[in-house]
Amino acid sequence: MTTALPGAVALREQAARLDADDPLAPVRERFLLPPDVVYLDGNSLGPLPAAVPAALDDVVRRQWGTALIGSWNTAGWWQAPLRVGDAIGTLIGAAPGQTVAGDSTSVQVFTALDAAAALRPDRPLLVTDPGHFPTDRYLADAVARRRGLQVRHVPPPDLPHFLADEGRQVAVVSYSPVDFRTGELYDMTALTRAAHEAGALALWDLCHAAGALPLEVDALGVDLAVGCGYKFLSGGPGAPAFLYVAQRHHAALETPLPGWTGHADPFALARDYTPAPGIARARIGTPPILSLLALEAALTAFDGVDLHQVRAKSLSLTGFLLRCADELLAPLGFTSVTPSDPGRRGSQVTLRHPHAHGLAVALAGRGVVADMRAPDLLRFGVNALFTSHGDLLTAATRLRDLIVEGAYDPAPPSVGPVT
Amino acid sequence: MTTALPGAVALREQAARLDADDPLAPVRERFLLPPDVVYLDGNSLGPLPAAVPAALDDVVRRQWGTALIGSWNTAGWWQAPLRVGDAIGTLIGAAPGQTVAGDSTSVQVFTALDAAAALRPDRPLLVTDPGHFPTDRYLADAVARRRGLQVRHVPPPDLPHFLADEGRQVAVVSYSPVDFRTGELYDMTALTRAAHEAGALALWDLCHAAGALPLEVDALGVDLAVGCGYKFLSGGPGAPAFLYVAQRHHAALETPLPGWTGHADPFALARDYTPAPGIARARIGTPPILSLLALEAALTAFDGVDLHQVRAKSLSLTGFLLRCADELLAPLGFTSVTPSDPGRRGSQVTLRHPHAHGLAVALAGRGVVADMRAPDLLRFGVNALFTSHGDLLTAATRLRDLIVEGAYDPAPPSVGPVT
Repeated sequence: MTTALPGAVALREQAARLDADDPLAPVRERFLLPPDVVYLDGNSLGPLPAAVPAALDDVVRRQWGTALIGSWNTAGWWQAPLRVGDAIGTLIGAAPGQTVAGDSTSVQVFTALDAAAALRPDRPLLVTDPGHFPTDRYLADAVARRRGLQVRHVPPPDLPHFLADEGRQVAVVSYSPVDFRTGELYDMTALTRAAHEAGALALWDLCHAAGALPLEVDALGVDLAVGCGYKFLSGGPGAPAFLYVAQRHHAALETPLPGWTGHADPFALARDYTPAPGIARARIGTPPILSLLALEAALTAFDGVDLHQVRAKSLSLTGFLLRCADELLAPLGFTSVTPSDPGRRGSQVTLRHPHAHGLAVALAGRGVVADMRAPDLLRFGVNALFTSHGDLLTAATRLRDLIVEGAYDPAPPSVGPVT
Repeated sequence: MTTALPGAVALREQAARLDADDPLAPVRERFLLPPDVVYLDGNSLGPLPAAVPAALDDVVRRQWGTALIGSWNTAGWWQAPLRVGDAIGTLIGAAPGQTVAGDSTSVQVFTALDAAAALRPDRPLLVTDPGHFPTDRYLADAVARRRGLQVRHVPPPDLPHFLADEGRQVAVVSYSPVDFRTGELYDMTALTRAAHEAGALALWDLCHAAGALPLEVDALGVDLAVGCGYKFLSGGPGAPAFLYVAQRHHAALETPLPGWTGHADPFALARDYTPAPGIARARIGTPPILSLLALEAALTAFDGVDLHQVRAKSLSLTGFLLRCADELLAPLGFTSVTPSDPGRRGSQVTLRHPHAHGLAVALAGRGVVADMRAPDLLRFGVNALFTSHGDLLTAATRLRDLIVEGAYDPAPPSVGPVT
């Protein structure tokens, strides 16, 4: 049963208008989206870019299968972590030679936090967001224990004030520009400046920002950044993460995991570790080439795409979804926890509902894939490369229908990764 | 020009006889080897198993492309590190629930060394092989610095004596059963026992052993082990590594990288880290699924294969190659550095020649892929799953031809990863 609301017609017309004027609409064809699915979980796992299957088949059958070990040279496998790093660099505002791809986000967070602490010895505090993604928190605790430091949890809005008071004790501040639950966007410029005024380093986790909005790590003077390859970069499940370290820190950079591929002369197999010049010293072990080159192929979905245009469309999309939520869902018990101010919004909309888990499951059953974060948040990721306003209206309408029909399980979530 | 030596005919007949009697000969069809290539570098990068392309295509197109985020549950992605770990466990003599796959060998070496040191607090020494693979040495140094410990370099034959003298100071001994340059096989049983008699932990790097010979980590009481997925396991370039920790250590196991996937309740996104029970606590971040599931498919090449049979064939192969070297190459200036005693031989043969680099390059040009280790070692890896005695005679014959013809560049190696 679908109830026709008066506002729904106006929303449908608005969606059609906005989609007709969308300069990024043709980019959707760069993704192999299943028909009849509205995919709003690209902030958890980006969908399959059309360039990936053929590229990976070539890596497997020709590069690995036929050229074998020689592909470390002839197919450029050896340079891949730096080459893919530079490709990601163009999306985060990093000049070449400062970004390396490889390992998981968790390993990169550990590396970045530990290396940052080493660059600011004699400062006893690591400061991070109490609402930071868990792995960032766990690894901040681990690095602090390892180095005899202390962790302070300071919400982003309070950070400038905290730094004004205690900043001289702070080695590094570790934050995300986008809250992974609410989608709130924090002020990277102001927080980076506040860190620097205190003499601390600014480390940003860009997992929910890279590929979703323009970033300017060089221009902002960011010291270190990490991010993942499988959310807005759509590099595939568990795609390698990346680490950015500003060039000015390279000479003094000491990483906690001096693996052989970061050696200045790795094939000399020298007895002692001598770090490579530049960001190459942040390489660790042999990278997972299949996953890494799938990520490289995925990044071609950004070819010729202006991230300012992505941002403009993303704000149009999230703004439209908030309007849909306001008109169709608020009367049914949903509240938005995502800021309505566009300047404070990342590229997702999160709605609160006590039956978020059951609704996410039921919604997936009707072809709309979102996700939930315990206990009561329904999360809609918006990737402007392939999402339309019409998709969002479909999502909101089907969610409304579920409520009206009572067609979902109101039981609390069982244990399990995702809906 | 090929010179016919009297011995070559006898070698040809012997090879044909041995290959005709080889019960593993049909297993060669489980690999997609390029025609006209003799591939003797499977100890550096295993060739493409026939099961991989279709399996990976399914992972990419169906699991990722169509089922999207749901595949973390429905396709078993979430459990893959433990499932693939258990599959590797069957090849190293580990009962289920003690092995996890993921991350690079370097990250796993760091994890294992640091966790081992934590299990033996108040013991100030890490002991390792001066000839150990560089990344093991670099990471031993890094862990020692981190924990205020000291590293002692003791060659494997001297280890029992050293431990008898200073063993009470030793937290962990970190060795490989197979020397990556010479192919010498050390006595895991005796060295593990010597470590235990001193109250130290035994950590084995199985990179050059897993899949090449029967291993019995449980039966030997090995404490921790690591290994890589891309050598004898043929899991693909940079395939994820593995970590084994004996069950008796799980409850006390503290890993240096407490990433979110090792949490007892990862999707609760709890504020503090509580390690999962069992080996799952050694998980770190989101694993590179494409590389990991390629490795899983690759491991099916071992289905129904008895590693004792693999070992018997491997010894036949390396013994035959040593005979070829003795008869065809020793007169031309080659000396073997691999033990002739089968009990002291891994699954490779290494020959010394001052022009090893130029010869490896020229040999590849004639369809025989081996590799070299600076400055003068030519390394022939022998994977009994796909190598024949005829292959080895071809390699030795073509190498002899190169010398006779002077058809190689005698210049020292330029910098570069591999031949």
